[in-house]
Amino acid sequence: MLDALGMPSIEVAATAGEALHLEARAFVVVDLLRATTTIATLFEAGLRDLLAVSDIEQAREYARRDGRLLFGEVGGLPPPGFDFGNSPVEAATAPVRGERAVLFTTNGTTALCALAGRGKVIAGALANLGAVASAAAELSDIAIVCAGEDGGRRFALEDFAAAGVIAGQVAARLPGASLGDGALLALRCATDVDSLARMSAHGRATAALGFERDITFALRTDTSRAVPTSVEWGPGWIRLVDGGVA
Amino acid sequence: MLDALGMPSIEVAATAGEALHLEARAFVVVDLLRATTTIATLFEAGLRDLLAVSDIEQAREYARRDGRLLFGEVGGLPPPGFDFGNSPVEAATAPVRGERAVLFTTNGTTALCALAGRGKVIAGALANLGAVASAAAELSDIAIVCAGEDGGRRFALEDFAAAGVIAGQVAARLPGASLGDGALLALRCATDVDSLARMSAHGRATAALGFERDITFALRTDTSRAVPTSVEWGPGWIRLVDGGVA
Repeated sequence: MLDALGMPSIEVAATAGEALHLEARAFVVVDLLRATTTIATLFEAGLRDLLAVSDIEQAREYARRDGRLLFGEVGGLPPPGFDFGNSPVEAATAPVRGERAVLFTTNGTTALCALAGRGKVIAGALANLGAVASAAAELSDIAIVCAGEDGGRRFALEDFAAAGVIAGQVAARLPGASLGDGALLALRCATDVDSLARMSAHGRATAALGFERDITFALRTDTSRAVPTSVEWGPGWIRLVDGGVA
Repeated sequence: MLDALGMPSIEVAATAGEALHLEARAFVVVDLLRATTTIATLFEAGLRDLLAVSDIEQAREYARRDGRLLFGEVGGLPPPGFDFGNSPVEAATAPVRGERAVLFTTNGTTALCALAGRGKVIAGALANLGAVASAAAELSDIAIVCAGEDGGRRFALEDFAAAGVIAGQVAARLPGASLGDGALLALRCATDVDSLARMSAHGRATAALGFERDITFALRTDTSRAVPTSVEWGPGWIRLVDGGVA
């Protein structure tokens, strides 16, 4: 929320659960490894429209009903019947130009759906750092939300460090913005995002699954100019388009 | 929980809400400014028994019914009818030797009550750092829980930094313990606990209310040898005694 003097404010919520108790005009959801990195990459590759879904059967049904490409993971791997996984490296070259897609992931899409309707919801990552920071700064009252682990109930270090990088870029565009406790701490992590992401529990698990290239990709900044933004939502789904203009 | 190899584990939960999704044998609840600092100090001053209560009317009733001293705060200040506030400086010289008390505070007692029954619950602070770290290390599977703001729903920087100091002391006593993401980050804050506590939203609010001496007191380590530990609980209350031996 705007602070007592009506100044812009920037907060970082350590989990999606915590974010439910925040008010803001824009919620930038970060699932660095790998959902929001994948989303930023899909839009950069020309995707037209994405339905992020919090239930796997619903995801299958929407893909079938609308003829959408189906992306996602369970336990890090593409589930049976999915067209693609949740890999940004794969997303970068997937044939998505002009297409529509559905994405289901364990944490990232759940966090996006949980915040639907509370404000403008934006999928942010290091991949679209500059684009998201500029768009968020225009809304001046921003919560950056770590998707976290365990359906948004648990803290994830890689999301928090990436949120700190985004917070720093937003703060640079909003001089005098008030910073909440989460933002103050996340900003201190920003310079170490690479080492923190690799030492995080999810970073180690992602590497152990063989997705080392996705980690390297996720740590690169500004490979995408997309600002995937909510335009419509319902129970268990949220529809994103680039820039919020369908 | 013990990790996959049965090694000791140390986790830091950023909020009491997050801690509800953790398993551990011991939950060390930290409300640096000021509830758990006050609790550690009361037991060092000779208090025999403390009922931490999450509802103010219940606190008044228990104090009346049992003839207990009534400590606490709302908005940082002692509510009408309370014998004492939630000030560790005041607690250090309060006439509590051999007495029993009730404590009601906005965040700390709510967090203690929320975790009742999930494992051994210990009130930890920098005031009783060494004593708590030793007791927790014996239980080998430990969650350090930041009480946070807004009834445990929001992150508080001063609690997180203090949790990092406690995590460091526990880790020193448990070589090879596995550290969760929250613990890894909190450990990095430990060396800056003074500056982080003073820059935190609640640190600034506490100073603005005129409790600067309580902040200084709360940042001192090992002024108490007490390990206030749960022995009994019910809806909205938890009873603590030093060392868990009534």
